[in-house]
Amino acid sequence: MGGMLAPGATIGILGGGQLGRMLALAAARLGYRCAIYCPETDSPAFDVAARHRCAAWDDMRALAGFAEEVDVVTFEFENVPLDTLLRLEKRVPVRPGPRSLACTQDRIEEKRFVAGLGIPVADFHAADDAPGLARALDALGGPAIAKTRRHGYDGKGQLRLAPGDDAAGAWRRLGGHPLAVERLVPFEREISILLARALDGRVAVWPAAENVHEGGILRRSAAPAVLPDKLARRAVDHATAIAGALGHVGVLAVEMFVVDGAPELLVNEIAPRVHNSGHWTMDGAWTCQFEQHVRAICGLPLGPCDARAPTRMENLIGEEIDAWPRLLAEPGARLHHYGKLEARPGRKMGHVNRVGRTS
Amino acid sequence: MGGMLAPGATIGILGGGQLGRMLALAAARLGYRCAIYCPETDSPAFDVAARHRCAAWDDMRALAGFAEEVDVVTFEFENVPLDTLLRLEKRVPVRPGPRSLACTQDRIEEKRFVAGLGIPVADFHAADDAPGLARALDALGGPAIAKTRRHGYDGKGQLRLAPGDDAAGAWRRLGGHPLAVERLVPFEREISILLARALDGRVAVWPAAENVHEGGILRRSAAPAVLPDKLARRAVDHATAIAGALGHVGVLAVEMFVVDGAPELLVNEIAPRVHNSGHWTMDGAWTCQFEQHVRAICGLPLGPCDARAPTRMENLIGEEIDAWPRLLAEPGARLHHYGKLEARPGRKMGHVNRVGRTS
Repeated sequence: MGGMLAPGATIGILGGGQLGRMLALAAARLGYRCAIYCPETDSPAFDVAARHRCAAWDDMRALAGFAEEVDVVTFEFENVPLDTLLRLEKRVPVRPGPRSLACTQDRIEEKRFVAGLGIPVADFHAADDAPGLARALDALGGPAIAKTRRHGYDGKGQLRLAPGDDAAGAWRRLGGHPLAVERLVPFEREISILLARALDGRVAVWPAAENVHEGGILRRSAAPAVLPDKLARRAVDHATAIAGALGHVGVLAVEMFVVDGAPELLVNEIAPRVHNSGHWTMDGAWTCQFEQHVRAICGLPLGPCDARAPTRMENLIGEEIDAWPRLLAEPGARLHHYGKLEARPGRKMGHVNRVGRTS
Repeated sequence: MGGMLAPGATIGILGGGQLGRMLALAAARLGYRCAIYCPETDSPAFDVAARHRCAAWDDMRALAGFAEEVDVVTFEFENVPLDTLLRLEKRVPVRPGPRSLACTQDRIEEKRFVAGLGIPVADFHAADDAPGLARALDALGGPAIAKTRRHGYDGKGQLRLAPGDDAAGAWRRLGGHPLAVERLVPFEREISILLARALDGRVAVWPAAENVHEGGILRRSAAPAVLPDKLARRAVDHATAIAGALGHVGVLAVEMFVVDGAPELLVNEIAPRVHNSGHWTMDGAWTCQFEQHVRAICGLPLGPCDARAPTRMENLIGEEIDAWPRLLAEPGARLHHYGKLEARPGRKMGHVNRVGRTS
């Protein structure tokens, strides 16, 4: 039991959204208590955790109190300030560690890191001002996508562009923030590899999921994705190399493009945490991503990642959540409702897993 | 959506043990909030619920406040005083209703009720004093089991006896409470039928589970139990008739004896709630008993009850919970740890579901 955090211990979760909520539910099944730290009031995770603190990320007093009451700290999203993590790490184990967070908070850093491992990414350039954006578009010489280097999620802070477009206007529309400008890849499909890396470095990988986005938001995922063996192996190798190089502990998601007409994969994005494209595992895999993350950060052995049945996950965004009565009556559909009271447009309100029956 | 309680509503749960805890976790997945009412401090359900009140069952002020903050009330065990339920029912829907509770709080009432439906039970007699106990033993004329009429659980308040045994001594050992004295049935095996009855009277029934008790405590259950078709149908008919006669809403468990050498079933006990012998459904059925109970009491459509895979449930009692590291490493084993900090002898600390792989 060396290094294992026993049930009864308290897991501190930074962030109180649906990912934190589902982490807390999985932790409870294994006998752990959770404490949520989150600046937003009425966070969905508060309702299922033993404790919560509603405080700013730089509230030193609140952070010190939080560190006192928890046995390990994790995070449910990567926009927690790095400094918050560094301060907590002086008092309590933080898993995954600051390295995973730092690398994925900045799109340029992330791409340089991945490319540095010899893993292909789409051509990219940094742009620190409007002329820089114009130069980047020229250099790429074709359709491109500009994204804020930091704090983007769910398609926010992104713009499709082409050489000759109004760079100054685009720069303003994106808020005047430093940008990552990437070649727009004519990809065939997008997959994601989710894995968990344990404290001892062991890795467990779920079957790949195939993802469909709309308006920059994940619409649905299906797993296991059907891929040529060679490609599937390469995808797993890429994700495993990334997790190892980060010294990551916990679940990590790697989105990849399967490129048109070439047996090649391009890494698009890393999420150093449980991920929307892994929600299918809640009903379709032997171990779900939330339980697996808890196992990893508590130093427990990882569970089996194989699929229990082919599963299609669909996000319920904004008013789509109003379909809950129909979804509850649909055989084989498993509704996950995040308990958010206000269905704002573009807000992830829940998801449904449609599980294929194999028996 | 007529009569449906929408996600976001608050479910009030009387009792804060592991059943309340697992109800709260299932409710959260569907987007409901839970409020726990329980006299015991440090109740396992408190850690996963949005609110809790720690107050006595007859604390009128606390009950009134509880009724204010919830949209429906249910209970996780049948020893809640009937009067508590009756008072709450004046202010908020209580599901299942007081009739289910009243009938199952008294073993003699329960047996008379079942027998009155034409469903076989073991011969029984009420005994209100030591001479009454002696008379009951004589009348049964063979091995018998004396149980306190009220407030017994997990084998507490039970004694095996035979004619000629010291009735006065047994009466004292059982605390001088009114007793139900039953013929000890030489049963072949014990099964339980769990079903859920919806607000509209529809019923969904899980496959039977076969149970093994030790020292009066459920040790393990396996489902689906292998039974002759005729017997299986009769078991379902009995349970359905009982639920209907009670006007029950929610999950109901009926324990039955399969009697040696005769194609007959004897109803042993009714539990008007989610039940230990239904824990296998958490990993082995398409809808687990906790989710199904939430669906029933919220007026939602019931989910499918069929088995996803053959499943064996084993209780972890007292120090057996110390096996958690081994169980977490066992493929196909799904650990449910109740988060209780003190492993007293005979205390249910968790359970493990061993799920057969069908694919």
